[in-house]
Amino acid sequence: MTTENFANVTLTTKASVYFDGKCVSHGFTLADGTKKSVGVVLPATLTFNTGAAEIMECVGGHCEYKLAGSNEWKNSGPGEKFSIPANSSFEIRVTEPYHYICHFG
Amino acid sequence: MTTENFANVTLTTKASVYFDGKCVSHGFTLADGTKKSVGVVLPATLTFNTGAAEIMECVGGHCEYKLAGSNEWKNSGPGEKFSIPANSSFEIRVTEPYHYICHFG
Repeated sequence: MTTENFANVTLTTKASVYFDGKCVSHGFTLADGTKKSVGVVLPATLTFNTGAAEIMECVGGHCEYKLAGSNEWKNSGPGEKFSIPANSSFEIRVTEPYHYICHFG
Repeated sequence: MTTENFANVTLTTKASVYFDGKCVSHGFTLADGTKKSVGVVLPATLTFNTGAAEIMECVGGHCEYKLAGSNEWKNSGPGEKFSIPANSSFEIRVTEPYHYICHFG
């Protein structure tokens, strides 16, 4: 079961474009002030750094990810989540567009 | 003056990915039911077909566009809009990410 939409949000119209467009996201804010983003990772292998802790929730497609300090690639598909600590990083390997919600904190 | 955000919308979490990711958009719905999308065109020259008429509003970056039946490339930058008739097409030429709001009808 994936989260198909969020109601009553404020959406930022300009995207964030990372890695020459291999990742594109749009930020939004819930009524209670919580910030999240929705985005896509296109086929690529990328390394993301975190500031705040993040939870990545897959809403379409699929990825493999490897957290900093781990040697293990794990899978994440629709409805699945994985957590990344603050001030850390993870590698992500994508062969079909990976659609996600990024939850912070 | 660009439209920086939309309040009180329902956001679809899964993106639409066109042209192998050269265009990525997220759909959303206003409180009154009006559907729009926000997206990015990455550096490329692409041809888009319209079903409903569209208004493309630039919220960051820049593009050149040429409507079906025209030989003239025109510029569109932040705060600027252009209209495409229903059941038509336009070419778009982008050298830096072009961020847009797509208004329908």
